Amino acid sequence: MVSGRFITLEGGEGVGKSTQIRALADALSARGVEAVVTREPGGSAGAEAIRTLLMEGSDDRWDARSEALLFAAARADHVATTIRPAIARGAWVLCDRFVDSSRAYQGGGGGITDADIMALHGFGSLGLLPDRTFLLTVSRDEAARRLSLRDAAGADRMGSKPADYQARLAARFSEMAASEPDRWRVIDADAPAEAVTAAILAELSAWLP
Amino acid sequence: MVSGRFITLEGGEGVGKSTQIRALADALSARGVEAVVTREPGGSAGAEAIRTLLMEGSDDRWDARSEALLFAAARADHVATTIRPAIARGAWVLCDRFVDSSRAYQGGGGGITDADIMALHGFGSLGLLPDRTFLLTVSRDEAARRLSLRDAAGADRMGSKPADYQARLAARFSEMAASEPDRWRVIDADAPAEAVTAAILAELSAWLP
Repeated sequence: MVSGRFITLEGGEGVGKSTQIRALADALSARGVEAVVTREPGGSAGAEAIRTLLMEGSDDRWDARSEALLFAAARADHVATTIRPAIARGAWVLCDRFVDSSRAYQGGGGGITDADIMALHGFGSLGLLPDRTFLLTVSRDEAARRLSLRDAAGADRMGSKPADYQARLAARFSEMAASEPDRWRVIDADAPAEAVTAAILAELSAWLP
Repeated sequence: MVSGRFITLEGGEGVGKSTQIRALADALSARGVEAVVTREPGGSAGAEAIRTLLMEGSDDRWDARSEALLFAAARADHVATTIRPAIARGAWVLCDRFVDSSRAYQGGGGGITDADIMALHGFGSLGLLPDRTFLLTVSRDEAARRLSLRDAAGADRMGSKPADYQARLAARFSEMAASEPDRWRVIDADAPAEAVTAAILAELSAWLP
Protein backbone atom coordinates (compact mmCIF):
# COMPACT_ATOMS: atom_id res chain seq x y z
CA MET A 1 0.00 0.00 0.00
CA VAL A 2 1.15 3.53 -0.83
CA SER A 3 1.70 5.83 2.13
CA GLY A 4 -0.80 8.63 2.47
CA ARG A 5 0.46 12.04 1.44
CA PHE A 6 -0.74 15.57 1.99
CA ILE A 7 -0.19 17.90 -0.98
CA THR A 8 -1.30 21.53 -1.17
CA LEU A 9 -1.46 24.04 -4.01
CA GLU A 10 -0.99 27.70 -3.23
CA GLY A 11 -0.81 31.00 -5.09
CA GLY A 12 -2.95 34.01 -5.95
CA GLU A 13 -6.24 33.97 -7.76
CA GLY A 14 -6.37 32.66 -11.29
CA VAL A 15 -3.08 30.72 -11.26
CA GLY A 16 -4.88 27.47 -12.09
CA LYS A 17 -4.90 25.65 -8.73
CA SER A 18 -8.27 23.94 -9.15
CA THR A 19 -7.50 22.89 -12.74
CA GLN A 20 -4.21 21.35 -11.62
CA ILE A 21 -5.77 19.57 -8.67
CA ARG A 22 -8.32 17.86 -10.93
CA ALA A 23 -5.52 16.79 -13.32
CA LEU A 24 -3.41 15.48 -10.42
CA ALA A 25 -6.36 13.51 -9.04
CA ASP A 26 -6.84 11.88 -12.45
CA ALA A 27 -3.14 11.04 -12.67
CA LEU A 28 -3.16 9.49 -9.18
CA SER A 29 -6.31 7.49 -9.86
CA ALA A 30 -4.74 6.15 -13.05
CA ARG A 31 -1.90 4.80 -10.87
CA GLY A 32 -4.36 3.19 -8.45
CA VAL A 33 -3.88 5.75 -5.69
CA GLU A 34 -6.94 7.09 -3.86
CA ALA A 35 -7.00 10.87 -4.31
CA VAL A 36 -9.07 13.06 -2.00
CA VAL A 37 -9.68 16.48 -3.56
CA THR A 38 -10.51 19.22 -1.10
CA ARG A 39 -10.20 22.96 -0.61
CA GLU A 40 -10.09 25.73 1.96
CA PRO A 41 -11.94 27.35 3.50
CA GLY A 42 -14.24 24.31 3.64
CA GLY A 43 -13.62 20.65 2.95
CA SER A 44 -15.80 19.24 5.75
CA ALA A 45 -19.38 19.82 6.87
CA GLY A 46 -18.44 22.08 9.77
CA ALA A 47 -15.81 23.97 7.77
CA GLU A 48 -18.24 24.56 4.90
CA ALA A 49 -20.70 26.12 7.37
CA ILE A 50 -17.91 28.42 8.60
CA ARG A 51 -16.96 29.15 4.95
CA THR A 52 -20.49 30.45 4.40
CA LEU A 53 -20.06 32.86 7.34
CA LEU A 54 -16.73 34.03 5.90
CA MET A 55 -17.88 34.51 2.31
CA GLU A 56 -21.26 36.14 2.89
CA GLY A 57 -21.94 39.73 3.84
CA SER A 58 -20.01 42.93 3.37
CA ASP A 59 -16.24 43.33 3.12
CA ASP A 60 -16.01 44.61 6.68
CA ARG A 61 -18.33 42.03 8.25
CA TRP A 62 -15.43 40.56 10.24
CA ASP A 63 -12.48 42.32 11.75
CA ALA A 64 -9.10 40.75 11.03
CA ARG A 65 -8.84 38.87 14.34
CA SER A 66 -12.28 37.29 14.20
CA GLU A 67 -11.63 36.32 10.59
CA ALA A 68 -8.30 34.66 11.41
CA LEU A 69 -9.96 32.69 14.24
CA LEU A 70 -12.77 31.57 11.94
CA PHE A 71 -10.27 30.38 9.31
CA ALA A 72 -8.38 28.49 12.03
CA ALA A 73 -11.63 26.92 13.32
CA ALA A 74 -12.61 25.82 9.80
CA ARG A 75 -9.13 24.39 9.22
CA ALA A 76 -9.18 22.51 12.54
CA ASP A 77 -12.46 20.84 11.56
CA HIS A 78 -11.20 20.11 8.04
CA VAL A 79 -7.99 18.55 9.36
CA ALA A 80 -9.73 16.49 12.06
CA THR A 81 -12.61 15.16 9.98
CA THR A 82 -11.28 15.02 6.38
CA ILE A 83 -7.51 15.31 6.03
CA ARG A 84 -6.09 13.20 8.88
CA PRO A 85 -8.51 10.26 8.36
CA ALA A 86 -7.73 10.21 4.59
CA ILE A 87 -3.96 10.22 5.13
CA ALA A 88 -4.34 7.52 7.80
CA ARG A 89 -6.02 5.14 5.34
CA GLY A 90 -3.29 5.71 2.72
CA ALA A 91 -5.04 8.25 0.47
CA TRP A 92 -3.35 11.29 -1.07
CA VAL A 93 -5.02 14.51 -0.04
CA LEU A 94 -4.88 17.26 -2.69
CA CYS A 95 -5.89 20.53 -1.10
CA ASP A 96 -6.59 23.86 -2.84
CA ARG A 97 -5.13 26.33 -0.28
CA PHE A 98 -4.18 25.58 3.33
CA VAL A 99 -2.52 27.42 6.23
CA ASP A 100 -0.07 29.14 3.87
CA SER A 101 -2.99 31.05 2.35
CA SER A 102 -3.89 32.33 5.82
CA ARG A 103 -0.26 33.34 6.27
CA ALA A 104 -0.24 35.18 2.92
CA TYR A 105 -3.69 36.78 3.17
CA GLN A 106 -4.16 37.40 6.92
CA GLY A 107 -0.61 37.42 8.29
CA GLY A 108 1.27 40.69 8.10
CA GLY A 109 -1.88 42.87 7.90
CA GLY A 110 -4.04 44.45 10.60
CA GLY A 111 -1.45 43.84 13.29
CA ILE A 112 -1.54 40.05 12.77
CA THR A 113 1.85 38.41 12.43
CA ASP A 114 2.94 35.21 10.73
CA ALA A 115 3.71 33.86 14.21
CA ASP A 116 0.09 34.56 15.26
CA ILE A 117 -1.27 32.55 12.32
CA MET A 118 1.10 29.66 13.06
CA ALA A 119 0.16 29.74 16.77
CA LEU A 120 -3.54 29.42 15.88
CA HIS A 121 -2.65 26.57 13.52
CA GLY A 122 -0.59 24.92 16.25
CA PHE A 123 -3.56 25.01 18.59
CA GLY A 124 -6.35 24.13 16.15
CA SER A 125 -4.68 21.61 13.85
CA LEU A 126 -1.71 20.57 16.02
CA GLY A 127 0.47 22.30 13.44
CA LEU A 128 -0.13 19.83 10.60
CA LEU A 129 1.92 20.82 7.53
CA PRO A 130 1.75 19.37 4.00
CA ASP A 131 4.35 16.89 2.78
CA ARG A 132 4.71 19.10 -0.26
CA THR A 133 3.36 22.50 -1.23
CA PHE A 134 3.33 23.75 -4.82
CA LEU A 135 3.39 27.48 -5.39
CA LEU A 136 1.89 28.20 -8.80
CA THR A 137 3.21 31.48 -10.16
CA VAL A 138 2.13 33.49 -13.19
CA SER A 139 3.53 36.67 -14.68
CA ARG A 140 1.72 39.92 -13.81
CA ASP A 141 0.34 40.18 -17.34
CA GLU A 142 -1.02 36.66 -17.32
CA ALA A 143 -2.53 37.14 -13.83
CA ALA A 144 -4.27 40.33 -14.97
CA ARG A 145 -5.62 38.58 -18.07
CA ARG A 146 -7.04 35.64 -16.08
CA LEU A 147 -8.51 37.88 -13.38
CA SER A 148 -10.29 40.04 -15.95
CA LEU A 149 -11.93 36.89 -17.33
CA ARG A 150 -12.95 35.87 -13.80
CA ASP A 151 -14.23 39.33 -12.85
CA ALA A 152 -16.56 39.24 -15.81
CA ALA A 153 -18.15 36.15 -14.21
CA GLY A 154 -18.61 37.86 -10.83
CA ALA A 155 -16.63 37.57 -7.60
CA ASP A 156 -17.54 36.92 -3.94
CA ARG A 157 -16.42 38.73 -0.78
CA MET A 158 -12.93 37.19 -1.09
CA GLY A 159 -12.94 38.17 -4.74
CA SER A 160 -10.56 40.19 -6.80
CA LYS A 161 -8.46 42.95 -5.32
CA PRO A 162 -6.30 45.52 -7.17
CA ALA A 163 -3.19 44.46 -9.07
CA ASP A 164 -0.86 45.96 -6.42
CA TYR A 165 -2.48 43.75 -3.81
CA GLN A 166 -1.98 40.67 -6.01
CA ALA A 167 1.67 41.60 -6.47
CA ARG A 168 2.27 41.91 -2.70
CA LEU A 169 0.53 38.58 -2.21
CA ALA A 170 2.74 36.93 -4.82
CA ALA A 171 5.80 38.34 -3.06
CA ARG A 172 4.67 36.92 0.30
CA PHE A 173 4.14 33.47 -1.21
CA SER A 174 7.59 33.60 -2.80
CA GLU A 175 9.19 34.52 0.53
CA MET A 176 7.48 31.60 2.27
CA ALA A 177 8.60 29.19 -0.46
CA ALA A 178 12.18 30.44 -0.24
CA SER A 179 12.27 30.13 3.56
CA GLU A 180 11.17 26.47 3.59
CA PRO A 181 12.65 24.91 0.43
CA ASP A 182 12.24 21.28 1.56
CA ARG A 183 8.47 21.57 1.59
CA TRP A 184 7.82 24.02 -1.26
CA ARG A 185 8.25 23.73 -5.01
CA VAL A 186 7.70 26.75 -7.24
CA ILE A 187 6.00 25.95 -10.55
CA ASP A 188 5.80 28.29 -13.55
CA ALA A 189 2.09 28.30 -14.30
CA ASP A 190 2.33 30.56 -17.37
CA ALA A 191 3.02 27.29 -19.22
CA PRO A 192 0.16 25.28 -20.78
CA ALA A 193 -1.90 23.34 -18.23
CA GLU A 194 -0.58 19.93 -19.40
CA ALA A 195 3.02 21.09 -18.95
CA VAL A 196 2.22 22.39 -15.46
CA THR A 197 0.68 19.04 -14.48
CA ALA A 198 3.75 17.22 -15.81
CA ALA A 199 6.05 19.50 -13.81
CA ILE A 200 4.11 18.83 -10.61
CA LEU A 201 4.03 15.07 -11.19
CA ALA A 202 7.77 15.07 -11.81
CA GLU A 203 8.27 16.59 -8.34
CA LEU A 204 6.11 13.83 -6.81
CA SER A 205 7.61 10.94 -8.74
CA ALA A 206 9.68 9.60 -5.85
CA TRP A 207 6.50 9.00 -3.85
CA LEU A 208 4.41 7.54 -6.67
CA PRO A 209 3.95 3.80 -7.28
CA MET B 1 -19.88 61.44 33.42
CA VAL B 2 -19.50 57.99 34.97
CA SER B 3 -16.61 55.90 33.69
CA GLY B 4 -17.58 52.89 31.61
CA ARG B 5 -17.29 49.55 33.37
CA PHE B 6 -17.26 45.97 32.26
CA ILE B 7 -19.02 43.56 34.62
CA THR B 8 -19.51 39.84 34.02
CA LEU B 9 -21.59 37.19 35.76
CA GLU B 10 -20.35 33.63 35.81
CA GLY B 11 -21.39 30.28 37.24
CA GLY B 12 -23.07 27.04 36.23
CA GLU B 13 -26.52 26.70 34.77
CA GLY B 14 -29.50 27.79 36.81
CA VAL B 15 -27.64 30.04 39.27
CA GLY B 16 -29.71 33.07 38.21
CA LYS B 17 -27.26 35.03 36.05
CA SER B 18 -29.83 36.41 33.58
CA THR B 19 -32.28 37.35 36.37
CA GLN B 20 -29.53 39.23 38.19
CA ILE B 21 -28.34 41.01 35.07
CA ARG B 22 -31.83 42.37 34.42
CA ALA B 23 -32.10 43.57 38.03
CA LEU B 24 -28.66 45.21 37.83
CA ALA B 25 -29.55 46.97 34.58
CA ASP B 26 -32.68 48.38 36.24
CA ALA B 27 -30.66 49.55 39.25
CA LEU B 28 -28.10 51.26 37.01
CA SER B 29 -30.75 52.93 34.87
CA ALA B 30 -32.41 54.26 38.03
CA ARG B 31 -29.08 55.93 38.84
CA GLY B 32 -28.85 57.43 35.34
CA VAL B 33 -26.15 55.07 34.12
CA GLU B 34 -26.47 53.54 30.64
CA ALA B 35 -26.49 49.74 31.04
CA VAL B 36 -25.73 47.50 28.06
CA VAL B 37 -27.00 43.97 28.69
CA THR B 38 -25.31 41.28 26.63
CA ARG B 39 -24.38 37.59 26.74
CA GLU B 40 -22.03 35.00 25.36
CA PRO B 41 -21.79 33.31 23.04
CA GLY B 42 -23.39 36.10 21.01
CA GLY B 43 -23.92 39.77 21.75
CA SER B 44 -23.16 41.10 18.25
CA ALA B 45 -24.42 40.24 14.77
CA GLY B 46 -21.35 38.20 13.82
CA ALA B 47 -21.14 36.48 17.20
CA GLU B 48 -24.82 35.53 17.09
CA ALA B 49 -24.23 33.87 13.70
CA ILE B 50 -21.35 31.89 15.25
CA ARG B 51 -23.56 31.09 18.27
CA THR B 52 -26.03 29.45 15.90
CA LEU B 53 -23.23 27.23 14.53
CA LEU B 54 -22.20 26.31 18.08
CA MET B 55 -25.67 25.56 19.43
CA GLU B 56 -27.16 23.65 16.50
CA GLY B 57 -26.50 20.07 15.56
CA SER B 58 -25.38 17.03 17.50
CA ASP B 59 -23.22 17.00 20.64
CA ASP B 60 -20.17 15.90 18.66
CA ARG B 61 -20.61 18.32 15.76
CA TRP B 62 -17.40 20.16 16.73
CA ASP B 63 -14.25 18.77 18.18
CA ALA B 64 -12.89 20.59 21.21
CA ARG B 65 -10.31 22.63 19.30
CA SER B 66 -12.67 23.89 16.60
CA GLU B 67 -15.20 24.75 19.30
CA ALA B 68 -12.66 26.74 21.33
CA LEU B 69 -11.65 28.68 18.19
CA LEU B 70 -15.29 29.42 17.35
CA PHE B 71 -15.93 30.71 20.88
CA ALA B 72 -12.82 32.90 20.60
CA ALA B 73 -13.95 34.22 17.19
CA ALA B 74 -17.42 35.06 18.53
CA ARG B 75 -15.87 36.77 21.56
CA ALA B 76 -13.48 38.80 19.40
CA ASP B 77 -16.42 40.10 17.35
CA HIS B 78 -18.49 40.78 20.48
CA VAL B 79 -15.63 42.70 22.12
CA ALA B 80 -14.77 44.73 19.00
CA THR B 81 -18.30 45.67 17.96
CA THR B 82 -20.33 45.76 21.22
CA ILE B 83 -18.27 45.80 24.43
CA ARG B 84 -15.36 48.17 23.68
CA PRO B 85 -17.54 50.85 21.99
CA ALA B 86 -20.01 50.77 24.92
CA ILE B 87 -17.29 51.16 27.56
CA ALA B 88 -15.69 53.93 25.49
CA ARG B 89 -18.89 56.00 25.59
CA GLY B 90 -19.20 55.57 29.38
CA ALA B 91 -21.78 52.77 29.52
CA TRP B 92 -21.67 49.84 31.92
CA VAL B 93 -21.59 46.52 30.10
CA LEU B 94 -23.30 43.68 31.97
CA CYS B 95 -22.36 40.42 30.31
CA ASP B 96 -23.83 36.96 30.99
CA ARG B 97 -20.71 34.74 30.67
CA PHE B 98 -17.35 35.76 29.14
CA VAL B 99 -13.89 34.23 28.74
CA ASP B 100 -14.08 32.64 32.21
CA SER B 101 -16.87 30.39 30.93
CA SER B 102 -14.58 29.20 28.13
CA ARG B 103 -11.90 28.55 30.76
CA ALA B 104 -14.36 26.58 32.92
CA TYR B 105 -16.12 24.66 30.13
CA GLN B 106 -13.39 24.19 27.46
CA GLY B 107 -10.15 24.56 29.41
CA GLY B 108 -8.83 21.48 31.15
CA GLY B 109 -10.71 19.02 28.90
CA GLY B 110 -9.75 17.36 25.62
CA GLY B 111 -6.10 18.35 25.98
CA ILE B 112 -6.93 22.07 26.05
CA THR B 113 -5.29 24.03 28.84
CA ASP B 114 -6.27 27.22 30.59
CA ALA B 115 -3.20 28.80 28.99
CA ASP B 116 -4.52 27.82 25.53
CA ILE B 117 -7.85 29.55 26.19
CA MET B 118 -6.10 32.67 27.47
CA ALA B 119 -3.75 32.69 24.44
CA LEU B 120 -6.74 32.62 22.06
CA HIS B 121 -8.32 35.41 24.10
CA GLY B 122 -5.07 37.38 23.95
CA PHE B 123 -5.04 37.12 20.18
CA GLY B 124 -8.76 37.62 19.46
CA SER B 125 -9.77 40.19 22.07
CA LEU B 126 -6.35 41.59 23.02
CA GLY B 127 -6.87 39.96 26.41
CA LEU B 128 -9.72 42.20 27.59
CA LEU B 129 -10.79 41.26 31.13
CA PRO B 130 -13.79 42.53 33.12
CA ASP B 131 -13.40 45.17 35.81
CA ARG B 132 -15.36 42.87 38.08
CA THR B 133 -16.62 39.30 37.75
CA PHE B 134 -19.33 37.89 40.00
CA LEU B 135 -19.39 34.15 40.56
CA LEU B 136 -22.91 33.13 41.53
CA THR B 137 -22.85 29.92 43.55
CA VAL B 138 -25.69 27.70 44.66
CA SER B 139 -25.70 24.58 46.84
CA ARG B 140 -25.82 21.23 45.05
CA ASP B 141 -29.43 20.67 46.17
CA GLU B 142 -30.57 24.05 44.90
CA ALA B 143 -28.71 23.58 41.60
CA ALA B 144 -30.37 20.19 41.09
CA ARG B 145 -33.80 21.66 41.85
CA ARG B 146 -33.38 24.54 39.38
CA LEU B 147 -31.97 22.31 36.67
CA SER B 148 -34.86 19.88 36.96
CA LEU B 149 -37.26 22.79 36.38
CA ARG B 150 -35.21 23.88 33.35
CA ASP B 151 -34.93 20.35 31.93
CA ALA B 152 -38.70 20.12 31.93
CA ALA B 153 -38.69 23.12 29.56
CA GLY B 154 -36.17 21.51 27.17
CA ALA B 155 -32.46 22.14 26.70
CA ASP B 156 -30.21 22.92 23.69
CA ARG B 157 -26.87 21.38 22.71
CA MET B 158 -25.09 23.20 25.56
CA GLY B 159 -27.88 22.06 27.86
CA SER B 160 -27.88 20.15 31.07
CA LYS B 161 -25.14 17.69 31.92
CA PRO B 162 -25.04 15.24 34.88
CA ALA B 163 -24.72 16.51 38.44
CA ASP B 164 -21.08 15.34 38.67
CA TYR B 165 -20.22 17.52 35.69
CA GLN B 166 -21.92 20.51 37.32
CA ALA B 167 -19.96 19.91 40.51
CA ARG B 168 -16.61 19.83 38.64
CA LEU B 169 -17.59 23.01 36.83
CA ALA B 170 -18.45 24.73 40.11
CA ALA B 171 -15.06 23.69 41.49
CA ARG B 172 -13.24 25.17 38.47
CA PHE B 173 -15.09 28.48 38.83
CA SER B 174 -14.20 28.59 42.54
CA GLU B 175 -10.52 27.98 41.78
CA MET B 176 -10.48 30.81 39.23
CA ALA B 177 -12.16 33.19 41.67
CA ALA B 178 -9.68 32.29 44.42
CA SER B 179 -6.69 32.79 42.13
CA GLU B 180 -7.68 36.32 41.08
CA PRO B 181 -9.41 37.88 44.13
CA ASP B 182 -9.12 41.50 42.95
CA ARG B 183 -11.37 40.83 39.98
CA TRP B 184 -13.77 38.21 41.34
CA ARG B 185 -16.47 38.36 43.99
CA VAL B 186 -18.26 35.18 45.06
CA ILE B 187 -21.98 35.68 45.75
CA ASP B 188 -24.23 33.17 47.55
CA ALA B 189 -27.09 32.78 45.10
CA ASP B 190 -29.14 30.41 47.29
CA ALA B 191 -30.48 33.63 48.84
CA PRO B 192 -33.65 35.30 47.49
CA ALA B 193 -33.09 37.16 44.20
CA GLU B 194 -33.52 40.60 45.80
CA ALA B 195 -30.86 39.82 48.39
CA VAL B 196 -28.49 38.62 45.66
CA THR B 197 -28.98 41.85 43.71
CA ALA B 198 -28.31 43.89 46.85
CA ALA B 199 -25.11 41.92 47.53
CA ILE B 200 -23.86 42.56 43.99
CA LEU B 201 -24.73 46.28 44.12
CA ALA B 202 -22.92 46.60 47.44
CA GLU B 203 -19.75 45.30 45.74
CA LEU B 204 -20.14 47.91 42.99
CA SER B 205 -21.02 50.86 45.24
CA ALA B 206 -17.60 52.52 45.01
CA TRP B 207 -18.04 52.91 41.24
CA LEU B 208 -21.67 54.05 41.30
CA PRO B 209 -22.78 57.71 41.18
